[in-house]
Amino acid sequence: MSQFADNSVCTLFGIEYPVISGGMVWASGAKLAAAVSNAGGLGLIGAGSMKPDLLDAQIKKCTVLTDKPFGVNIPLAGKYSESHIEICIKNGVKIVFTAAGSPKKYTAKLKEHGIIVAHVVPSAMLARKVEDAGCDAVVAEGTEAGGHNGREGLTSFVLWPSVADTVNIPFIAAGGVCDGRSMAAAFVLGAKGVQIGTRFAATRESTAHQNYKDAVVAADTGSARIYNIAHMPIRSLSNEYVEEFIKMERSGASIEKLMEFRGKMRTKTGVFEGDNKEGELVAGQVSGLIKDIPSVDDFISLLITDFMRSYQCI
Amino acid sequence: MSQFADNSVCTLFGIEYPVISGGMVWASGAKLAAAVSNAGGLGLIGAGSMKPDLLDAQIKKCTVLTDKPFGVNIPLAGKYSESHIEICIKNGVKIVFTAAGSPKKYTAKLKEHGIIVAHVVPSAMLARKVEDAGCDAVVAEGTEAGGHNGREGLTSFVLWPSVADTVNIPFIAAGGVCDGRSMAAAFVLGAKGVQIGTRFAATRESTAHQNYKDAVVAADTGSARIYNIAHMPIRSLSNEYVEEFIKMERSGASIEKLMEFRGKMRTKTGVFEGDNKEGELVAGQVSGLIKDIPSVDDFISLLITDFMRSYQCI
Repeated sequence: MSQFADNSVCTLFGIEYPVISGGMVWASGAKLAAAVSNAGGLGLIGAGSMKPDLLDAQIKKCTVLTDKPFGVNIPLAGKYSESHIEICIKNGVKIVFTAAGSPKKYTAKLKEHGIIVAHVVPSAMLARKVEDAGCDAVVAEGTEAGGHNGREGLTSFVLWPSVADTVNIPFIAAGGVCDGRSMAAAFVLGAKGVQIGTRFAATRESTAHQNYKDAVVAADTGSARIYNIAHMPIRSLSNEYVEEFIKMERSGASIEKLMEFRGKMRTKTGVFEGDNKEGELVAGQVSGLIKDIPSVDDFISLLITDFMRSYQCI
Repeated sequence: MSQFADNSVCTLFGIEYPVISGGMVWASGAKLAAAVSNAGGLGLIGAGSMKPDLLDAQIKKCTVLTDKPFGVNIPLAGKYSESHIEICIKNGVKIVFTAAGSPKKYTAKLKEHGIIVAHVVPSAMLARKVEDAGCDAVVAEGTEAGGHNGREGLTSFVLWPSVADTVNIPFIAAGGVCDGRSMAAAFVLGAKGVQIGTRFAATRESTAHQNYKDAVVAADTGSARIYNIAHMPIRSLSNEYVEEFIKMERSGASIEKLMEFRGKMRTKTGVFEGDNKEGELVAGQVSGLIKDIPSVDDFISLLITDFMRSYQCI
């Protein structure tokens, strides 16, 4: 396919389509990442929910499942982030996306090992810092995204053009993208690629529990709620746990009380174990636009066809 | 100009460009509305901050200032809304946008008088109700917008395609639109027209105070904060008042305490009287993308030129 021959994101990563699967806790293992890469996109293994040994095994597995480029997403706030970085280097991973921390922390080290580095941000001010830190690309994610979110609360529609105006490195749009028209709109706003989360979490190859995938399909656009907004915002599908969290938060509960209530394994309980009542079903507002659980291959084919139709002037 | 010859919003309102100025308290009087209409868009007089006599005078003034179509925006939650409706009918106003209330309340009555009716909503579910109520068009406004906002917190990027998928009447996109590329992206997501607020509030013809306009120009994308989120969210530029409101809200203050702190004339104090410290400077996240205070005519010319460049396939 030649329609993305001049696309800077495709050139940077050596991929066919400028479509990246987000690093989603408990959903994006080697199986999903390899499927995305085999379909012409860039699959990311999400290290956020993996202990070092598991990440090591998943990288090795992904290398078996695909000979196309793939990458690893590493949230720098995680307690294993340093080990994750070492494991990527040791295994010869070619692409690393970092998030939730300073882009200065590991970029130079990764680049010394010939690794292409992208970093995820919620504002143009931080996008500038990503470029200054020597990263090769920046992912700008709006507040509609699932999971952890910037405190700025900037929506994709305002964030993206501000980032496009600020940096010269390729900019990848995240937060709210789930189909061809939203990908086309992101390109109109200056993106050269898209990172898609929730839509990939609800594909057949995602390791999320079937109950989670069903909850995404059943959701409407108002289902994905944001909470913990004063500290580190999280967006998940409404359930008893989330509504109770919001109630506590709005009545002035301390961060200690809130974190105690949340506990340590809420997201695993929700996304991986399928407890839709008490678990944390991290997902974006786009859940309301997602109506099926396709294979990655079918989804990416449809995505590119619809994108080309929406964005005929490429 | 023929580029919008088949556009349903242009046809409905009898205008040249599918560009509408929002009904903004203290900013959108006859002068701004007439300037927008004279430039080929649809100007709205914002009744929200007007007592009945003032609205009556402003409508009469607008009729003198333009022979093009213009309209009136009426928030139905306001205490004068019934009088506002009567004044529109009495003055032969041809177009009314209603908001913040049920679209069933006045639509039939307005249509009996031959008035074209649009209604503003924050979700697809409510957009459906607007269509069912017999309105001629629906405005879908995302949470990035300035002023009063839906409690759903839906961003424009997710809201708009969900509305496009739900209704058959023309859908007008609002919240985050400020230039040609954002207008083009809205069209990619299914909009047939755009309603622009903050960008018009910071034009020469707006009746907002110069201090307010300067504050919009000085803002970055993180400046416009949302608060009163549990009750009736409001988005305004950060200042001492807004930060104190958020602090109170997050420590669990009651709605009564919050409304007492806000008082009755905060928005007039900010937008109209120019007190940037204690006033409520209602504005959208797009404030961070606005860098000048043009005339309406210059802005609309540039908007349409940039739109055509971004959206070459129209």
